[in-house]
Parts: sequence; C-alpha cells; structure tokens
Amino acid sequence: MSTSIDLNADLGESFGVYRYGADEELIPLVSSVNIACGWHGGDPATIRKAASLAQKNGVIIGAHPGYPDLMGFGRRYMALSPAEVTDSLLMQIGGLDGICRAEGTCVSYVKPHGALYNAAAKDVALADAIAEAVLLYDPDLMLLCPSGSAMEKSARAKGIRVAGEFFADRAYRDDGSLVPRTEKNAVLSDPEEISSRVLSAVKKGTVVTATGNLLSVSFDSVCLHGDNPEAVRLAAAIHNALQSSGVLIKAFAGEHYGG
Amino acid sequence: MSTSIDLNADLGESFGVYRYGADEELIPLVSSVNIACGWHGGDPATIRKAASLAQKNGVIIGAHPGYPDLMGFGRRYMALSPAEVTDSLLMQIGGLDGICRAEGTCVSYVKPHGALYNAAAKDVALADAIAEAVLLYDPDLMLLCPSGSAMEKSARAKGIRVAGEFFADRAYRDDGSLVPRTEKNAVLSDPEEISSRVLSAVKKGTVVTATGNLLSVSFDSVCLHGDNPEAVRLAAAIHNALQSSGVLIKAFAGEHYGG
Amino acid sequence: MSTSIDLNADLGESFGVYRYGADEELIPLVSSVNIACGWHGGDPATIRKAASLAQKNGVIIGAHPGYPDLMGFGRRYMALSPAEVTDSLLMQIGGLDGICRAEGTCVSYVKPHGALYNAAAKDVALADAIAEAVLLYDPDLMLLCPSGSAMEKSARAKGIRVAGEFFADRAYRDDGSLVPRTEKNAVLSDPEEISSRVLSAVKKGTVVTATGNLLSVSFDSVCLHGDNPEAVRLAAAIHNALQSSGVLIKAFAGEHYGG
Amino acid sequence: MSTSIDLNADLGESFGVYRYGADEELIPLVSSVNIACGWHGGDPATIRKAASLAQKNGVIIGAHPGYPDLMGFGRRYMALSPAEVTDSLLMQIGGLDGICRAEGTCVSYVKPHGALYNAAAKDVALADAIAEAVLLYDPDLMLLCPSGSAMEKSARAKGIRVAGEFFADRAYRDDGSLVPRTEKNAVLSDPEEISSRVLSAVKKGTVVTATGNLLSVSFDSVCLHGDNPEAVRLAAAIHNALQSSGVLIKAFAGEHYGG
Repeated sequence: MSTSIDLNADLGESFGVYRYGADEELIPLVSSVNIACGWHGGDPATIRKAASLAQKNGVIIGAHPGYPDLMGFGRRYMALSPAEVTDSLLMQIGGLDGICRAEGTCVSYVKPHGALYNAAAKDVALADAIAEAVLLYDPDLMLLCPSGSAMEKSARAKGIRVAGEFFADRAYRDDGSLVPRTEKNAVLSDPEEISSRVLSAVKKGTVVTATGNLLSVSFDSVCLHGDNPEAVRLAAAIHNALQSSGVLIKAFAGEHYGG
Repeated sequence: MSTSIDLNADLGESFGVYRYGADEELIPLVSSVNIACGWHGGDPATIRKAASLAQKNGVIIGAHPGYPDLMGFGRRYMALSPAEVTDSLLMQIGGLDGICRAEGTCVSYVKPHGALYNAAAKDVALADAIAEAVLLYDPDLMLLCPSGSAMEKSARAKGIRVAGEFFADRAYRDDGSLVPRTEKNAVLSDPEEISSRVLSAVKKGTVVTATGNLLSVSFDSVCLHGDNPEAVRLAAAIHNALQSSGVLIKAFAGEHYGG
Repeated sequence: MSTSIDLNADLGESFGVYRYGADEELIPLVSSVNIACGWHGGDPATIRKAASLAQKNGVIIGAHPGYPDLMGFGRRYMALSPAEVTDSLLMQIGGLDGICRAEGTCVSYVKPHGALYNAAAKDVALADAIAEAVLLYDPDLMLLCPSGSAMEKSARAKGIRVAGEFFADRAYRDDGSLVPRTEKNAVLSDPEEISSRVLSAVKKGTVVTATGNLLSVSFDSVCLHGDNPEAVRLAAAIHNALQSSGVLIKAFAGEHYGG
Repeated sequence: MSTSIDLNADLGESFGVYRYGADEELIPLVSSVNIACGWHGGDPATIRKAASLAQKNGVIIGAHPGYPDLMGFGRRYMALSPAEVTDSLLMQIGGLDGICRAEGTCVSYVKPHGALYNAAAKDVALADAIAEAVLLYDPDLMLLCPSGSAMEKSARAKGIRVAGEFFADRAYRDDGSLVPRTEKNAVLSDPEEISSRVLSAVKKGTVVTATGNLLSVSFDSVCLHGDNPEAVRLAAAIHNALQSSGVLIKAFAGEHYGG
C-alpha cells in the first residue's frame, strides 16, 4: 500500500490573550495545517503567526472555516442556510489567504471546522454549499473531509479534488462508519495501540473494527490533535512510528500558486 | 482642469436583518464603491450583494476595512497597535476579495473606514501600518485617502498609488484643512451650493474657503453619502450637476486583475 | 369571556447605528414589551431608551433573551446545552434589569426570542432550562410563551406563573396547533379579518380554524409586530378594534418590585 | 497602622474553550474577586463557576466591567462616550449580578477593567460616568479604584464609598504616582522584596520610592495577579507574608444584600 501519508492538525486557534493548542510543538510533526479563519477562533495576529510557522516549516496550509460562534468554538450546530455557508466560507478562506500573502504563502485546501464539518459530512445541501464556495474561490483548492461523506460526493460532483481523513483515535464499525462517541470504546487512548493502527492503516490499508473484523480503509491524511499535552505526545508517537517504519510524511496537496 | 472625476460611496454596510445605507440608489451615481469588510459592518450575504451590484454596474470595488467595533460602527477610536492594524487589514481585504471572486470581480483599492481613517490621516505609525498592509496584499492596489494626509505620504513612500478625496459638504480653511465639526458652518447642507462647489473644484481646481478666499485643491474622487434619504438626494444632485456640465464620471482605478 | 387583554411587542432591537422596529410607534399600542438583551439585538443605549419609553408609558417590561447570534438576529437554531441556556438567560435578564434600574423600573416577565422560543416550545430540556433560569433569577417573574407548549409545562411544574400568547396573524388547526408556515394560508394579512379574529378570540374565546371549524382558545396576550410599516398599521388596527369594542388593554403582569 | 487588609484578584476571565487565569489557585488567597462581565472576557458558564467559587469560599464579589473588545481583552483604549460607559456598566454589572443570584450571592462593588480603568483614573468625564452607573445600579455598591484617582473623586462626590488599591509589584514616585511602565524598574519581580514592601505598606503605611525616599500610602486592598504560574506564586508569597505577620486578610466590603 501507500508508503507516504499526510499528517494534518489544526493551527492558529488562539484568540487575543487566550492561548489554545500547541502550534510550535505540532508544526514539526505535520505536513498540512488547518488554520482558523477568525470565526470559531483565531485573531489576525495569531493567524499570521500560524501562517509564518507553516511557511517556514514547508507545511501546506488549509483554511479551517467554522460557524460564527467564538463562545462555542464552532462546536455547536447553527442553522445557517446553504447560501450563508457558501458566503461565509468565501469570506473566511479569503481572509486567511490575505494574511498568507504577507508570509509569501497561500491557502491550498479547505477543511471545515467542528459542528460545520460534522453537519456537512451528512447534509447534502451543506456539503453542496461548501463545494460551491471552494469552486467559486478557486477550483484548484482541494477539500479535506471524511472519506465517503456527503462532502466528498458534492466536491467530486463539481470536479473538486478531495483528500480523505483517517481518524487515528476512533473505533470503526464493520461498515466503515465511526463508533459514535455515545458508545463506550468509541475513542482510543493508548499511544502504542493507536500508532500501530495508523501504521497498519497506512501500510496495509486495513484496520481492525470494534467487532474484531478487518476493514479496508482508503485515505490521504491522518488528523493529529494538540489541544492538550497528552494529545501532543500522541501526535509525536504517531509521527515517529510512521517515520521509523519508512513511511514518508508528505502533504496531499501541493502549494498551487503564489509564494 | 480635470474633465473627468471619480465619485465614491460606502456600500455593503448592512448587517443581518439590519439595513443601513442605500446601496441600490447609490450604485448608478458612483464609479467606485468602498465595501464594508465585516468588522464595522457588513455580513457575508450583504457584502456579496454589494459586490454583485458593483460588478453588474461596472463600478470599481475598494475594501473599506475598519475597527472591530460593530456596536460603534467603527466610528470610535480604538488603540490598536500598528501591527494589529496591518494584520487586520490583510484579513479584511482578503475576506472581501474572496467574496468578490464569486461575482467575477475583485478589490482594486483600499479606503479605511471611520475612526481608523481619521486616526491614520494624522498618525504616521498607523498610516505606515495601512500602507504596509496594502503592499503585502497586492502592490497594485491603490489607496483612497485625504489629499496631503499621513496616509498619502506613507503610501507614496512605499510606491503605492494614491487617490485623494474632496469633501463635498465640508468647509475648508485657507491652509487646505477642514473646518472642524466642532465649529459652526463646518458642514454644508444646501444641495445647490454643494453641487456648485464640487463643480468649481472639479473644473477649476478651486474652492472658496470659510473666510472667503480662493483655495487651490487637487483630488481624484468626491465622496458621496447614502445614510439617509437627504444624503441620497444630495448625491444625485452632485452627480447630475457634474454630468450636465460635461464632466465624465470615471473610476480613478482600473480593475487590475481577475474578472 | 375576557373583557381585558394584554398586547405585547418586541422593543429595543436596534443595534448601534442600525435601526430596527418602530419602538415609538408601538409603545402607545401595547401594555407589555419584550426588550432585547444584547445577544440577538439591542445595545446598552438602545435598551435604555426602550426601558425609558416603557417606564414613561406605564408599560410592563419583559426580558427577551436570545441566542448569541447578532448576524442571524437570534433566528437561527444553535445547539446550546440546557446549562448554557440557563446561564445565558441569567446574564441576559440581569443585564436588562440593570439598565431598567436606571429608569426606575424592572423586568417583570421573560419571553425567549426567535429560534430559542421556537425550540423551547417543543424541547423539554430547553424548556426546563428556561424555567430554571426564571426561578433562579426571581421566582416572581412570569413566563410569556405559547399556550400548551413545553415551556408552559416546565414553568408550571416549577411553580412559575405563565401567560399564554395568541397569534393574531396565523391560521390555527382544529387541534389548536398553528398551520406551519410551509403551507399556504398559514399567515393572514387582511387587517380587518385579523382584527375581527382577535376580537372573537378575546371576547368569545373562539377562533375559526383553517378547515372552518370553531376552536376554543385560551390566552393572556396577543403579540403585535413592528418590523415594517404594514405591521405597525396592523398593530394599530388590532389595538383600535379592541378598544372600540370596550376591551380593556391591560398588562398580564404587575410590576412586582423596584420602581 | 492597619492590622487587616483586603486582597483582590480578577476571576472568571476564561471564554468558552479558552482558559485564562488561575481561578481555583487564587480563590483561597483573596478576600475579594473582580469577576469579568462578558465584554472583555467571561462567558456565562465561566462566570457562574467563578461566582460559585467565590460564594463557597466566602469571598466578596465585585463586577469587573470593560470595553467591548474580546480580541483585545479590554486592554485597548476605546473612545466610548461617557453615556455609553454608564449604560454599558449598568448592563455588565446587572448581567453578573443575575448569575450571582443563581449561586445565592451578589455583586458588592465595582472595579473597572483594563484600559477603562486606566482611562477613568485620569479622565473626569469617564470617572463621572462610572460613578453614575454605580449610583444608578445600587448606591450601596462600593468602587475599587486607585487611591487619589479621578474615579475616587467622582465617586466620593456622589456619596459612593470607595476602596483604594495598592500596587504590590510597581515602583512609586515621591509624589505618590506610579513609575510609568516605559521606564526601567517600573515593575518589581522579586517575591521577597515585593512581600516585604506590601508588609511595610500595610503595617506602617509607608513604601520606599524609586528615589529611595519614604512615601506615606493609604489603601484598602492589594491587587494580586494570576495570569501565569509565577504570578500565582507571588500572590501566595504576599498572602503568606501577611498572614505570618498577623495581618488579617478581610474584605473591604460586606456582602450588602441578597444571599
């Protein structure tokens, strides 16, 4: 199977005096970063620092737009209309891209954030609205989303290139869906187990499901987290396990213009 | 003197259910529009409608960034650092530009809004910060600002092209500065007097000062307002007076890319 | 049946330079006003003006708290947890009450706004969260909500007094529910028809349903709107029809403290 | 001199997922807490947790209102009019007080935050606006502010009781003013030196100035910080030095109603 894979993480989610995430610790571990666009997190100075970090480390930048809900960090569903989603994504992607210009870099893909990501994974109208925004902004941008989701389908239907995500610390069902967080054992926590799952997924294209069966998985990127010290250690463990096994960590998207 | 002149007005300053200004009435009267970028006014849907109006009417678009103060409509001074101003402008210009893409158009110039405009007219560090943002975003963008201001000087020093504004309804002093609003007769209100002043300023390059002397003035654009029905009537009166006198109403900036 | 009834309307929903509603025109027509609390609309100066208007006209004040979504005017559902709803209501009611003190008046009841009102009419957990906030703030506050809703049940279960609303311009079904807005004829527009329906509802306790049957209705207040000139004319028509028929327009709640 | 003193600190300044300050570590060290009101920091859930912490630890609560600038944490001056300051304080104090009710406690004093505190220390119109808000909200509330400031004078002129603050980690000039932060040695950092200065100030009413002279100081409270681990250690050092010397740590204000 694949001998190279992308690792992605969220960046630039601090806001004013408020620190969030571990931008400096994560940047050497990843090949792509999803940078906040100011609506769920991220002020201009924070975003510029994140863009600079990415540029200096040769890491590809994705826009990470979300709902206009700083108090809820974009994690609470909001009933925006599809047109509101399209217009707000155009503004958020453009805002980040404007800051990227100052650092001699640019946005190369889009990954919706939080509750918007979850809603658009299933809701075709929202998925279409997101694909429409990507297309209108720049048809060369890629979309990073769950493999097999409504977002993937909408994007492909419009000719947008898609990268799929593998969830390192989540249990899978036999049908390829995630075990819902409401069920126990939905989230894995042992670094060794997780690293070994990622390795198997990347190298063999298979993962053991919650019921013990072997599931074929296909994806372009593994999502790492940096919300707490433990998450950063897990990210490092996955990164190191992949490197030690000879897997090349490499962005799924090329920086496609500017710079 | 000049037989063509630009007329500019603010657009896209509504927010959600809140209507502000008279975008539809103003658009046939002007050659350039300063579109809000969401910080002092303007939500994505409003901004997109404004960009569409401009595109359909062949009107050039400027970014109209302001302080992050919706409650005060960007009219209250805020002690942002120069770096904060630069970064926030990059984000605001980019956000508007992202929406413009969806309408097949683009940002061609920048005019700061409200208290930021007033502060940067005099404060060299803020003026430099604004010029820096324009330069980093796109050195081909122009800056629309008061003639002779700190903003003009900072921009020219960085090689940015500048357009100067004439204030149609304000009294001028002999030294070329505006009579402060705190003094009586600072603001003119008679449509005929104002139209005739604009005509003289455009065609002869002179305006009568508050003390009755003749002042030479040099500018590229006249700012029109649309905050209330009277302002819109005044805007129409100025537009019509210019047209009847054979003055061509023409944007100072060409749309320089995209489209 | 009843020979007195309350008329209520939303007030204080302007924000900064943005005007919304017709506070001055509505105030002489109503006996109760739902004043915005700053989250979906209303800045401190606007709210203080609304509280002053109410105090001077002897109109009872209700708090009109909503989702933290100024861009959507609180009309877009947001997935706040019940605890978040309780805490945000405490803050919003208190904020309005603080301003009321400056005008020698106080909050006497609570009516949730927009999408929160609609969600809590059906969702028991949200309804409980709202009743909890009322109870914690002041058990003497009343709750204004749809008759028979989850909100009414939660409030009564906690010993909170409830006032029910009649929707003047909406068609009713035989089971007492509203004809959904997605169906045609859901919303009535003829001022004479509406006034006569309100009169029948108030005086006889009956209304003709969409299928032509006679439905018994029980309520304490009729909601008037002021979003546009037509709505204000309709409000005046209802007010005048009631007065001419000898119905006393009278608040359902007494001002219960302060002043 | 005094054998009891108040220690105060800021609380409840986190926002959503964003953690700020060290509420749990500070609460056992202080007798009064200034709780954020949502404008510069603090969401309803955070504020409620802070109010609960204060209530459970027998600590007096002050309102800590600020400018509407979450991005700048209320530390950037904003040109609000005096009327805007009064109205916004009424709303912020009331909002916090509403949450306090749910925890069986109440607001007992007001201490403006950040740039508003600094501006109103010198600007008489702002100082009057703050005193007006306190008076209108509840004339029994106290005001915590710099000794000798415009805020103190405005409050006393309106009959509001005032508590003065001593700045533990700042150098004083012979005239009683603080050495500006732009000068070196303006801020002290050695925990032992600071503790010993506080002890001398509290017990003898004197402090050594930057030029080595002895200055008489009069105050009711010492402000502690919790922004970083070092600040918390310093707060504990001051607290412990006072206690070991037999100084009673005791709120300047009694909880004056409710509860």
